[in-house]
Amino acid sequence: MKELEFIEGILQETAVYAKEKYADRMNLDVSMKDETTNILTEADLEVQRRVVERLDKEFHGDLVVAEEAGLDRNPSDEGCRCWVMDPIDGTQNFVRGLFPIFGISLAFAVGGRSVAGGIIMPVMGDLFLAEEGAGATRSGKRIRVSGIDDITSAKLEVDFVRLSRRDVALKAAGKVFQTVGAVRSKGCAVAALCSIANGDAEAYIHVGLRPWDYAAAQLIVEEAGGKLTRLDGSPLELFDGKSGLLASNGILHKEFLSLIEA
Amino acid sequence: MKELEFIEGILQETAVYAKEKYADRMNLDVSMKDETTNILTEADLEVQRRVVERLDKEFHGDLVVAEEAGLDRNPSDEGCRCWVMDPIDGTQNFVRGLFPIFGISLAFAVGGRSVAGGIIMPVMGDLFLAEEGAGATRSGKRIRVSGIDDITSAKLEVDFVRLSRRDVALKAAGKVFQTVGAVRSKGCAVAALCSIANGDAEAYIHVGLRPWDYAAAQLIVEEAGGKLTRLDGSPLELFDGKSGLLASNGILHKEFLSLIEA
Repeated sequence: MKELEFIEGILQETAVYAKEKYADRMNLDVSMKDETTNILTEADLEVQRRVVERLDKEFHGDLVVAEEAGLDRNPSDEGCRCWVMDPIDGTQNFVRGLFPIFGISLAFAVGGRSVAGGIIMPVMGDLFLAEEGAGATRSGKRIRVSGIDDITSAKLEVDFVRLSRRDVALKAAGKVFQTVGAVRSKGCAVAALCSIANGDAEAYIHVGLRPWDYAAAQLIVEEAGGKLTRLDGSPLELFDGKSGLLASNGILHKEFLSLIEA
Repeated sequence: MKELEFIEGILQETAVYAKEKYADRMNLDVSMKDETTNILTEADLEVQRRVVERLDKEFHGDLVVAEEAGLDRNPSDEGCRCWVMDPIDGTQNFVRGLFPIFGISLAFAVGGRSVAGGIIMPVMGDLFLAEEGAGATRSGKRIRVSGIDDITSAKLEVDFVRLSRRDVALKAAGKVFQTVGAVRSKGCAVAALCSIANGDAEAYIHVGLRPWDYAAAQLIVEEAGGKLTRLDGSPLELFDGKSGLLASNGILHKEFLSLIEA
């Protein structure tokens, strides 16, 4: 499908730029959003600008929803052709962190549902792609969620979110912390979700994600055999206005849901 | 000092091997220790074997303390010359995980105190070195802890440890979770500690570390201007038999200590 080809191409292209900026991050322009741990860099803006410019050329008239620069909006017509993008997910890690745990995410949605999506980790080079009904791949190879069915052997990825909503996150995951085999928190939703798709983790809990954080990743996890719902077990829709989600390898989904206090 | 030169050389050498094994990790021999999330690979054993063999040649008669293969012991004479090694810290991430968050750690100690230490992240290539009184470096450049003095802007690295001791970890860090700006958990002590030395995080809490986990990292953090104590604020000695620790950028040490329930 030509939209998936576009996604693959533009992700590879912008990843080159993001990798260069990461290598030179000492000289990066960084500004704060509402809290000191919520930041924006020139790299976020430039990746988004490049993708928006190319979309305008190749898919003129399609709606673009994205994290930065005022494009964080819901489509008024949910049935429209819509591109959903996070230029850099894991900006904190991009600026501060020994490991390059950040990704660029782009999805193409119709009727409020992603039908093609891609995520690239610019420094490591991993490219995750999925098309509805056609499976998910990591750098060209088919991937599948893990078969782990015992929660005491499972690995949870979790996000502690910003301080102002920390209590919600701690409450949601509290019982899971006491039950699950291992816990990781990387501060990058697309990395956590791709870990599940790739069979490297069994579940991910986040209490405050926006559509651009999961538009591509939802499809990748589902096409790899995994499952995503809201924290109360209801279906996850792109523009339903809710923000909590549980992703899992499917097998353990019900058990994780039963432990979450939403 | 010749011991530091040895550390630098052997870390570079074994990192090449570890990187190759990581690239080919689908074919790795993996066995479980006491819990399913506590594992051992052939790579851990081989890195340790190579270092022990070279130490026996170049520093014959020195004691070696290391995580694997029966070398997890305390020196009977604390004043002796002693090498303390973790062949692969972050073995779980080595086997399962999108990012290569693991390191090789080697320290040289006299009188129960590290005087030279090094940590290498084999895939990213970062090499951290420190010598007592001479500062700490990352790949040749001097590093320093961050100057962040406001806990709501600080980043905590924390380890959730294995399930059987999870309650201890959750209790220790509980109040900190409600206070600190950001939380990360990578499942690799040397990566977390080097993050502090490098100014990328402000504190690290772990309730169950052994000497090989921090022998090199303690010196690196201290030489970068940071501070380490036990969770009750008492001094951190290599062979004191205790296992909890708080590392920080120094500035925030007292505040973190006051929030920890040890």
